[in-house]
This record gives sequence, C-alpha cells and structure tokens, in this order.
Amino acid sequence: MAKLTYKDAGVDIDQFDASLDDIRQAMLRTFGPRVLPNDNGFAGLFKLNPDRILGRPFRDPVIVGCTDGVGTKLKIAFMMDKHDTVGIDLVAMSVNDLICVGAYPLFFLDYIATGKLESRKLVDLVRGVSEGCVQADCALLGGETAEMPGFYAEGEYDMAGFAVGATERRRYIDGRRRVGPGDVVIGLASSGLHSNGYSLVRKVLFDVAKMNVDRHVDELGRTLGEELLEPTRIYVTALCRVFRAYRRKRVPHGVANITGGGLPGNVVRALPDHCRVRIRKKAWPVPPIFDLIQRLGEVEEREMFRVFNMGIGMVVIAPPFYASSVARQLKRAGETPYVIGEVVEGERAVSIE
Amino acid sequence: MAKLTYKDAGVDIDQFDASLDDIRQAMLRTFGPRVLPNDNGFAGLFKLNPDRILGRPFRDPVIVGCTDGVGTKLKIAFMMDKHDTVGIDLVAMSVNDLICVGAYPLFFLDYIATGKLESRKLVDLVRGVSEGCVQADCALLGGETAEMPGFYAEGEYDMAGFAVGATERRRYIDGRRRVGPGDVVIGLASSGLHSNGYSLVRKVLFDVAKMNVDRHVDELGRTLGEELLEPTRIYVTALCRVFRAYRRKRVPHGVANITGGGLPGNVVRALPDHCRVRIRKKAWPVPPIFDLIQRLGEVEEREMFRVFNMGIGMVVIAPPFYASSVARQLKRAGETPYVIGEVVEGERAVSIE
Repeated sequence: MAKLTYKDAGVDIDQFDASLDDIRQAMLRTFGPRVLPNDNGFAGLFKLNPDRILGRPFRDPVIVGCTDGVGTKLKIAFMMDKHDTVGIDLVAMSVNDLICVGAYPLFFLDYIATGKLESRKLVDLVRGVSEGCVQADCALLGGETAEMPGFYAEGEYDMAGFAVGATERRRYIDGRRRVGPGDVVIGLASSGLHSNGYSLVRKVLFDVAKMNVDRHVDELGRTLGEELLEPTRIYVTALCRVFRAYRRKRVPHGVANITGGGLPGNVVRALPDHCRVRIRKKAWPVPPIFDLIQRLGEVEEREMFRVFNMGIGMVVIAPPFYASSVARQLKRAGETPYVIGEVVEGERAVSIE
Repeated sequence: MAKLTYKDAGVDIDQFDASLDDIRQAMLRTFGPRVLPNDNGFAGLFKLNPDRILGRPFRDPVIVGCTDGVGTKLKIAFMMDKHDTVGIDLVAMSVNDLICVGAYPLFFLDYIATGKLESRKLVDLVRGVSEGCVQADCALLGGETAEMPGFYAEGEYDMAGFAVGATERRRYIDGRRRVGPGDVVIGLASSGLHSNGYSLVRKVLFDVAKMNVDRHVDELGRTLGEELLEPTRIYVTALCRVFRAYRRKRVPHGVANITGGGLPGNVVRALPDHCRVRIRKKAWPVPPIFDLIQRLGEVEEREMFRVFNMGIGMVVIAPPFYASSVARQLKRAGETPYVIGEVVEGERAVSIE
C-alpha cells in the first residue's frame, strides 16, 4: 500500500497557496489606515478609533455583529459559471443589517466552503467580496477557505459572511423605542431580487416555466441569468450619510432591511407595540422581474410580498418634520427614495394597501 | 396548477419558528451585562467597555475578528447522529485563534446551513455553540440558519463561526516582533484530534482499515466515534489569565493555535525572520489516537506532524525568566503544560527533533 498523505485524502494545500497572492491583493484594496499589520495571520486586527485627524474617537462604543449567507442565489452563479458578483451579495446581506441599528461598518470576514478547491473560482469569489467591501466602505479583514471533500456537489460551494460595525451607545437605533404614529415610511429602490426567495424563483422559472438562464427576456431587457445574478444593492454609504447629518437628533427613527419575509416581515421588526404601518403599494414601480415570477408561477400577491422585496430593498422611518430632508439626503447619495407609507396607531403589524 | 408558495419550494419557515425559543434560551445562557437589548433582531449589540465596577474601559481598543468552520469532523457527527458537541469545536476554532493575538473574546456568531431544516438537530447544534461560548466566556450574540434545498445531502449540514475580541493597541501580540532566541516554547495538551485532518482520519480509519464509529478500541478506552468526536479544547480562560497576570510586561512573546499545518506550520507563524524553533518530540506524550492513525495508515511521521496537533493544541512562547511562572499559571487554570522546545538563532523554521 502506498503511504497516505493529506493530498491523497482530497485536500490540496498547494492549490490554495497559489491563489493566496490574488486573495491578498483583493483584501489590500479594502484596507484603510485602521487595519493593523499582523503577519501571523491568526486573526485580523482593526483599530476602533480613527486617528485624530480623520475622525473622533468613540466615547462609549457598541460593537455590532451580523452574519448571513447568499442562499440559493448561488445556484444561479453555478448555472452561469460566473462567480465574481455573489461576493457583493454576501457583503450586502450583512452590512445592510448592520445599518439597521445605526452602526457604521468596520470590517468583514468571509467563509467559503467547497468540495474541491478551484483557484479561479476562489479568486473570483473573493474579488466579489472585496468589491462589496469597497462599496460598503469596510475592510475585508480575513476569511476562511474550507476544502471539504464529500460535502458539496462538484463545482459548487457555499459562503457565509460576517460584518462588524460600531456606533455610540446613546445613538444606536432601537426602532421599537423611537418609531411613533405620524412617522413617514421611506422606501429605497432595490436592484432587483437581491438575495432572497431564490428557491421559489428557481421553482417557478426553471421547473414550472422551463426557462433557462441564457433566455433573453424582452421585458427585462437582458437575459434571465443576468437579471437573477444582479448584485444586491448596498445601502451603507447613503444611510451613513444620513446618520452623520443628524448626529445630534434621533433621526432616523427606524431602519429595516427588506430580506426574507418581505416588507411585512421586516418593517414590523422596527415597530413598537402600539404602531402599525400602512404601505401603499402603488407608491413605487414594481420591477418587471417580480411581475414575471408572479405571472408564470401564479403566485398570490400576498405571498409575493411575503417572500420578495417587490422593488423596495431598504426602509427608513423618519419623523414627518425631517422626512423630506432625509429623502433628499438619500437621493443625493445616489438612492431612489419613495414615500411608501406612514406609521399609524394600532396593532403592531404592516398592511399593504 | 396549484398556486406556488414558498413552502412548496422547499423552505419551511414555520419549522424554524418552532425552534426559536430553544435557540433563544441557548443564547441567553451566554449573555453578560455587556449584551444590549435589541428586539428588532437585525443585528447583535455588544457594549465594548464594561461598567466601571466590573473592569476598566479600553483606551485605544483594537477589534479582532476570526472565522473558521469545523471541517469534515462534521461527518463523524453525521455518522453518530450526535450533534450537540460540534458547536463547541466551532467556537474553539475561532476563539483559539483570537487569543493568539492577545485578544479577549467578546462575542460569537454562527452560520448553519442545511438542505432541509430539522428542529432537533438545529437546537442541538446551537446548544453546542452555546456551551462553547460559555467555555470561552463570550456571548453568542446571533446567528443565521440557512435552509438551502439542493446544497447538502439529506441530514447533513455545514457551519461557520465568527468570533470578535478586543485588546489594547499597545498590548496586542505580534509574535513576529517580540519572540527572540532563548525564549521557551510551552505546549498545552490537546484533547485529541481537535478539528483538523479529518479527511485523512476518515480515509485511514474507515476506507483503509475498514473500522466504524461503534468499534470499541482498547488503546483509546472508548469507541472510535467517541474519540473522534471529542470536542476541541478551548484555551481562552487559561490564556486570558496569563494576559491579565502580566498586564504591564510583554509576556507571552508569542501564541500559536495548532490547527491544519500542525506544529511546524503554525508555530512558524509566530516567529521573526532570524528565529528558529527546535521542538523535542519526546517532551510530551503523544495520545494513542495519533499512533493508531499513523500505524493503520502507514503515514510518515513527518506527514503526521504536518497534519495533526500530535497532542499539543496550543503553544505559548515566553521569555526564559517568566517561563516557569507562565507554565504555573496555565496549570492552575486547568491546562497541562509541557516545555517542548526553545527559540534559537537561525533560518525562520520549526524543526521537530
């Protein structure tokens, strides 16, 4: 019997080493002056307080942590053999949660697991993560690549992301305290499906409607695959701009990232007990991809709103006096804001009307 | 055609809701006074500075992040249908990295992905994570459970962990600066294989030697499965005790978590360019599981040291003047320390002699 080595057992460390330079480049692109040198690689280090010239130190900092994956949207990347954008989705899923409590993203870490490591894919994945971190203005501080023979189908992988942010203790947004009747609900346009509901998407479009990713769809103006792989919008810079603009006032009152559960399932998380939100569904244009799925799958509208963002990726709740200036700030930061509803007294719930 | 709902597409949100109470209990067990209430659930919040009565605030804090998974050790959990300990491994893998830079763990987040959610397994997994967090004295601040139909084999799952810690900037351990010739290398006993090299373990024990997990092995004093599933030792409380004891001195000089790559691959990460470490392999007893694998797989000793920890799970490098008091502190904290070698001048490398 030949002597066994670790490579025989399916784990090729050399293959991984070959990608390390490219991965390091992708990480360095995201580094700011607050990332500390640490050659030993056991952990990533981030200086909490910026140097005096660049900003103020935190007085009573709260550290905020979020984790999420990309879900079955990854299957679309497999189908199209295109792996350089799902990393953006990965970052988006976590940092869009961070800003819901008023935190500024500091750094991000990724976990990528696959059956057999392929250098090209791995580098593409990390480049996507790096691009997401640049968009979210946070450092890609580290990550883990796990080669797990027998866990994933050939050519497939899963990834998890982890974002850390910080805010002042007296400024963190606990929507359930601040939000009150009369507040205005502002919705920010999504870039499409974002990263939720893909199990239903695939069931409807591929299993029921027998379409494939290469199919050009006129109402989408591009191929189905391009539409489905469109990266999740990252709302960090726009929201952080709002946080900075109202440093001394408690604005916004609430922020909700619209993911699984849709508008009803997520906006409700920002509400106190005695508050109801009424959303007017005619207040914004629903992107064509949602119509397509609803029509082809004969999905009920109620279910559509419970699974998908329906064109609104982030919700900001602001007091009426500040609502138009908040919307203006968001617009100036490149977002497309719509006033989509208001907070009224009533049982804690969200109604779509 | 019946109307499609999200449940038809393989994602059962109700099943998950049923486990939420148990998961919440497992998390609450780990909470200290620094975890802030946040009902909206978008993110976990952790107050960096303890209240005055409990400790001192950080002056110039460095936030440290680590991520890791459990690797193919999970296959042993699948074989034994026992899921309440791999969470300990998950926490161990990340927090044992955190302490290598001198950081105190603050909080942890987990990501668990599976094809079809099973409440019992999920609750067992999170209970393990919670137990690990208690051992590491950190809060289980949140997590993500991803149901991904078509990604994982039936009954299987993957998990990733993320740990965040903090330290004073002027105190973080960059071993590559502090370590020097004459320093003493102290090894702490591992609890067994920890969470590395399981692809080779499975190949040797199951494929080559045709053993199974229920087989009682005399030299191990228990079944093979029990040995292979033994949780990774968490060295946090012992190391943090050492950090506190030498608050004003730069002791230890270096710390290395012995994971994939073994002693040579990990101790070298803590060395400056002109330093070599000589390790005497007779200085500690190699646990019987390593002999078993080496014998049955006819694995070369060199390869064994490159893949496995060989009985040493953590290495602490200390100046000679403090070495015996460091070892005493570690022993008092429940560890089993051995002086296993020393730092000498020479090319940056680790030799096992």
